[in-house]
Amino acid sequence: MQLQNTIQQQAQSAKRAAQKLAILSTEMKNKALLEMASALEHRSDMILSENQIDLNNARAKNLSAPLLDRLMLNEDRLHAIAEGMRQIALLDDPIGSGLCEIRRPNGLDIRAVRVPLGVVGIIYEARPNVTADAIALCLKSGNSVVLRGGSEAINSNKIICSILASAAYKAGIPEGAIAFIDDVQRSTVATMLKLRHELDVIIPRGGKGLINYVVENSTVPVIETGAGVCHAFVDKTADFQMAADIVVNAKTSRPAVCNTIETLLIHEDIAADFLPLITKKLQSLHVTIKGDEKSRTLCPSLEEASEEDWSTEYHDLIISVKIVFDIFEAVEHINAYNTGHSETIITNDLKNARYFQGNVDAAAVYVNASTRFTDGFEFGFGAEIGISTQKLHARGPMGLKALTTIKYLIDGNGQIR
Amino acid sequence: MQLQNTIQQQAQSAKRAAQKLAILSTEMKNKALLEMASALEHRSDMILSENQIDLNNARAKNLSAPLLDRLMLNEDRLHAIAEGMRQIALLDDPIGSGLCEIRRPNGLDIRAVRVPLGVVGIIYEARPNVTADAIALCLKSGNSVVLRGGSEAINSNKIICSILASAAYKAGIPEGAIAFIDDVQRSTVATMLKLRHELDVIIPRGGKGLINYVVENSTVPVIETGAGVCHAFVDKTADFQMAADIVVNAKTSRPAVCNTIETLLIHEDIAADFLPLITKKLQSLHVTIKGDEKSRTLCPSLEEASEEDWSTEYHDLIISVKIVFDIFEAVEHINAYNTGHSETIITNDLKNARYFQGNVDAAAVYVNASTRFTDGFEFGFGAEIGISTQKLHARGPMGLKALTTIKYLIDGNGQIR
Repeated sequence: MQLQNTIQQQAQSAKRAAQKLAILSTEMKNKALLEMASALEHRSDMILSENQIDLNNARAKNLSAPLLDRLMLNEDRLHAIAEGMRQIALLDDPIGSGLCEIRRPNGLDIRAVRVPLGVVGIIYEARPNVTADAIALCLKSGNSVVLRGGSEAINSNKIICSILASAAYKAGIPEGAIAFIDDVQRSTVATMLKLRHELDVIIPRGGKGLINYVVENSTVPVIETGAGVCHAFVDKTADFQMAADIVVNAKTSRPAVCNTIETLLIHEDIAADFLPLITKKLQSLHVTIKGDEKSRTLCPSLEEASEEDWSTEYHDLIISVKIVFDIFEAVEHINAYNTGHSETIITNDLKNARYFQGNVDAAAVYVNASTRFTDGFEFGFGAEIGISTQKLHARGPMGLKALTTIKYLIDGNGQIR
Repeated sequence: MQLQNTIQQQAQSAKRAAQKLAILSTEMKNKALLEMASALEHRSDMILSENQIDLNNARAKNLSAPLLDRLMLNEDRLHAIAEGMRQIALLDDPIGSGLCEIRRPNGLDIRAVRVPLGVVGIIYEARPNVTADAIALCLKSGNSVVLRGGSEAINSNKIICSILASAAYKAGIPEGAIAFIDDVQRSTVATMLKLRHELDVIIPRGGKGLINYVVENSTVPVIETGAGVCHAFVDKTADFQMAADIVVNAKTSRPAVCNTIETLLIHEDIAADFLPLITKKLQSLHVTIKGDEKSRTLCPSLEEASEEDWSTEYHDLIISVKIVFDIFEAVEHINAYNTGHSETIITNDLKNARYFQGNVDAAAVYVNASTRFTDGFEFGFGAEIGISTQKLHARGPMGLKALTTIKYLIDGNGQIR
């Protein structure tokens, strides 16, 4: 109860601060971001020593090497985080720009302007860099932020947040705009999810378990991010070299991230030639391949894919393979099993390329390119708060505009209806 | 369980139909809408006789006169509904238009295009006209729709839906695109709220109870609509005649709707003059006035306003009045008690007008005009699926574009990352 009240009070302060933050000048916000970036670099000793505590705790708990790597900060990484904040300062301010003007026959002037969402809640897991990123993106777009990070990075998150908040407030950001929930009990997440009057949106960043828990329990609107069961479909007219390069890149360049492919679909007319070729390449890169019946007939060395595989995000060097009769079966399979993230076709048939883009239901639908490009920076947005896999509000990579809404300003001279 | 399965199957059929509907030509959709409108008029006898059953049941349950009026259909009203559908056929198709094109340095061409949301769930109460409106708006924007109407109008809704669906399917709309949940048990709402994999959004249309229930229990993304605790602030420089006209219009022209004002705030410097004037006018129109202490000192005939009044949507000829020290107190009161719908200031002070528009947190913020204009038709959108009082996805009156999302189409020639 005590804890619930504290969290609610932090959120209420964030809401009050948001009203002031919404009308702060771009200049003030940018100045604050630059000073916050410098503070992060000046206090790197403090941050690294707190990070060391998290790393020691993680090692004591036998966390895996990739998890330890996510958690680990050093001078270079801190410098990169500070540089990221400076980049955000350079981006156009999304706030205040007019979106449309309507003059009605009765003389009413209606303008739609872009305004901040208000208070953004971020619930995230083990990466301490998310703390700085989220604070910078929320501030730049005029939003207060309430952060709730994972237990593994609690000491790192806390010190980063405290350094950034005090630099921000010194630079004129309203007090309370940056709130950190300094408690890792699971119940703090549950409390946040019920703060419908204080928070305007919650963005969960992390694994499937966290995201499902948030979606299923939140009364605050949620933007679902991250889950990616992505596919590549190699059509019968595909250039084999291009197809192999794209499949290898999309599976192996960073297997733990969401825009990696999990399933390879191959047109049956070319399967006998392409499957052995891609199997050899993937196996030489230590990728485990799980095939359907047809592909195991062609390549008996493949493991057997189960029904569950088609909807599994492996986060690992594992891929499932299915041979399909034609593009229609490929699109049908994708729409049945994908998570609405990123899909690609490798083809030289323009009609099939357009059919694929028109009919596949996903945020990003590629022709002849790797799904790994689904990313705010690669799309040229200059920043990314996450990748939305839902259709409401934002879809695909979310830049600063995803943290805004509109407001109608209507000027009259006594109009009544 | 049986019932749950039926609803889920309807939603799955709607999802399959949505994939075909998404790529249907504007011409086909418009032709279907016109034939649906004609079918509604040709079968008016059938509809009116089913409506009579609902009216008889409602009378037997002693429903109030306004509720009976909402429920009642006649030839004129059916003609108006059909005309509304013809108007929707005339609107621009929101689907397929390119929103932006980005050519990246690596040669990737990224286009964002507007696409349907997919399957829209509508949960509504006693108005049978919502059935036809919602079907027409969803079809025009390429969406399937799953409707769940209130028990009072069940027979009217069922026949309208069945006539429209068969006309639509005959005109080439994919079967299953229009689903009606033919059961009024409360549990059908609960079932819909969990269909996260079938429904892309749920829009509740009705009273506070329904909307809160949906927001608190849905795992499907929700667009919150409708609740309106709206305010008028009469500043010290206001033109009294204009202020009185606006307040009277905003309170009395249609007290049951959401863009009606519930609270009048008056600057204390003019309260002694303006309050008796507006009190007289409102009382002559049978409006009950509940005042704070200061206003009751000036006008002892007012009833006493309690803390609860400041957050009450009366849906009736009742208004609460509060005298405020200045514009800052007015804005603070509004931001503390409003529902994010519509607010107006009556003033001749430009600085105060801009302060009010900049600092009041609501979908529509007026200067010198009645809040009653917050409406899709009055804003020139040509249609309205509801008025969003949340900030995510859509805010204020929602036209066809609110029923769409985007999709990124990316063309490459072998790019890998």
